[in-house]
Amino acid sequence: MSPLPAAIVDALRTVLGDGPAPLHEPRFQGNEQRYVQDCIASTFVSSVGAYVDRFEQQLADYTGARRAVAVVNGTAALQVALRLAGVQSGDEVLIPALSFVATANAVHYLGAVPHFADSAEATLGLDPAPLRDWLKGIAEPAGGGYRHRHTGRRLSALVPMHTFGHPCDLDGLLSLAHDYRLTLVEDAAESLGSRYHGRHTGTFGRLGILSFNGNKTITTGGGGAILTDDERLADHAKHLTTTAKRQHRWEYVHDEIGYNFRMPNLNAALGCAQLEQLPDFLASKRRLTVRYLDAFARLESVRLIQEPPGCESNYWLQTLILDEAVADQRDAVLTVTNDAGLMTRPAWTLMHRLAPYRDCPRAPLPVAESLVRRIINLPSSAGLA
Amino acid sequence: MSPLPAAIVDALRTVLGDGPAPLHEPRFQGNEQRYVQDCIASTFVSSVGAYVDRFEQQLADYTGARRAVAVVNGTAALQVALRLAGVQSGDEVLIPALSFVATANAVHYLGAVPHFADSAEATLGLDPAPLRDWLKGIAEPAGGGYRHRHTGRRLSALVPMHTFGHPCDLDGLLSLAHDYRLTLVEDAAESLGSRYHGRHTGTFGRLGILSFNGNKTITTGGGGAILTDDERLADHAKHLTTTAKRQHRWEYVHDEIGYNFRMPNLNAALGCAQLEQLPDFLASKRRLTVRYLDAFARLESVRLIQEPPGCESNYWLQTLILDEAVADQRDAVLTVTNDAGLMTRPAWTLMHRLAPYRDCPRAPLPVAESLVRRIINLPSSAGLA
Repeated sequence: MSPLPAAIVDALRTVLGDGPAPLHEPRFQGNEQRYVQDCIASTFVSSVGAYVDRFEQQLADYTGARRAVAVVNGTAALQVALRLAGVQSGDEVLIPALSFVATANAVHYLGAVPHFADSAEATLGLDPAPLRDWLKGIAEPAGGGYRHRHTGRRLSALVPMHTFGHPCDLDGLLSLAHDYRLTLVEDAAESLGSRYHGRHTGTFGRLGILSFNGNKTITTGGGGAILTDDERLADHAKHLTTTAKRQHRWEYVHDEIGYNFRMPNLNAALGCAQLEQLPDFLASKRRLTVRYLDAFARLESVRLIQEPPGCESNYWLQTLILDEAVADQRDAVLTVTNDAGLMTRPAWTLMHRLAPYRDCPRAPLPVAESLVRRIINLPSSAGLA
Repeated sequence: MSPLPAAIVDALRTVLGDGPAPLHEPRFQGNEQRYVQDCIASTFVSSVGAYVDRFEQQLADYTGARRAVAVVNGTAALQVALRLAGVQSGDEVLIPALSFVATANAVHYLGAVPHFADSAEATLGLDPAPLRDWLKGIAEPAGGGYRHRHTGRRLSALVPMHTFGHPCDLDGLLSLAHDYRLTLVEDAAESLGSRYHGRHTGTFGRLGILSFNGNKTITTGGGGAILTDDERLADHAKHLTTTAKRQHRWEYVHDEIGYNFRMPNLNAALGCAQLEQLPDFLASKRRLTVRYLDAFARLESVRLIQEPPGCESNYWLQTLILDEAVADQRDAVLTVTNDAGLMTRPAWTLMHRLAPYRDCPRAPLPVAESLVRRIINLPSSAGLA
């Protein structure tokens, strides 16, 4: 065993002890059983029920968004948010190459084309400076906005994603979105609890989205939400995600093509209980960061990612970055740690390396290419510290 | 109050008693609380867990399909089933005009165009005879299959839906599908428990789908399933509905554009308990039919829908049909019954009357047009009789 992987296992053991550790498991120590039992007893487990309303209100209160609309998962939330942001079939949407595939899929479902941009080393999220340079070269004014001069497609939206819970440079991206007439939609799937200059991520764009998948900071089994300050957009989001059925005592009139995307009440019941514990989860995750920082301080060729200046990260996934000099040991580290029962994983495959997105337009991606060879996510569950 | 609405309320009261009655509410008197509690205690509430596997196996065993793949809802199931059936963007897909909007939406999500066909009075589902006549006129051979000569679009699939749980004429439709090289995909969203010549609906086409929405015979909160006898299609369905991620110890490689459509384990836990009670639910619903038949026997201008010959219906929604002579009293009946706390509803608005589908191709729809003016669904929950 080469020294670095073994040293990383040792460092992890000082924090996690001798047992196995999953990457991120949910924690149900609050009112989960009670609320879910109550939900079943009420018989309202599906598309109508008080927990959905309550969960939406709790999310709005917590994030500071005027409205939250609970849906079936984060992908569905992003698809609908992009549609409401005006993304149309044939548009291009700027998204990070370093993201989970759902970001690109949501664009694709609308008939639009993802256009990949680079990340910043400091935030792991979209870097506005090189993206501005790129747009200077490829964007030309057309119809009140901009189009990609090589493809002729309208550039309609910009979708930053807050990687592993670390807020990206929203000021820079908002300025860029303004200058290029791009609607900013935040993919905050990973960043519930993360704040940028004191304000919750997902509330800076015209719309933002959250995810409550089982591996997220809080879970509803499967679930997501759309955030917006615009009441009209929120009402429209609710309409679209409930099959666009008009209110009527008995008639079934659907006035546009909607989706069956509403979060079931059963899942919202779990979410209400989880959200009550979010402050505790976040505090535990920050303690874990402190302990990992201490454990990895002696290792010279690796660095634990910390929240960017001016930001408060939720530390959804704790992340180690290998120095370039030892990047070739990434797979050895992954093998040895996973063999030891300490679940680690690399970043996602960059979007433009995936077969279905290989031919999409993209900016130069030197930082994302470097990051993806060096990132290792560590066991990160709430309750580990 | 005119005599007919009052007589219908009286008839309903003889069956349902004095209290209010919803159209269809779920019934949780089995292992629901136990399985859901166990699921939460296991922490596996989301995209991995034993209840999903168990629910899929139970569904396969019950329906006789070789495989069942549990997904997030019936709409998602139909979208993926149609994709697996080879439906492509720009195709036309034959579906009943008399259906819930999800049938048309699933076609639309794939970039295909619904083409509406008429129903049979006896089954409420697609009528193969007039559809054959229609296709004789508008279909022309092209590329090994048929295309619609007026639109130039390929006719790729035929989607019968078993309305309110009554099996439609599958023999006639299978023969038609064979002759016109249409892939048959069954929308069995409403017909869990319904059999055609002894075999479960949803298992006749290349693929079939089920729904477990809150208003269905059994519920998972929100949920659906894809049924197929083709192992390769089932594996592909599982792959597509889990973001098309290849199995790997840590790499994130998605080899095609998939969906986040997997049923959460929490919802599957509810489903396992519900499925155990399905035989009791079906027996109760059949008892209710007998009681409604008796109660409405004296009313000359209405008729309770019964299962078609050779079929066993699940009687998901009990359905009254008004004679043509009293069709103009439908809204009065709806008003008076709902005012009395006895929830009734009409059939859906026919698909070609909805704004987003107004311009889609359609066959003549005289029977559907007539049925939609005369159908009234009655309180139908399991446990009422």
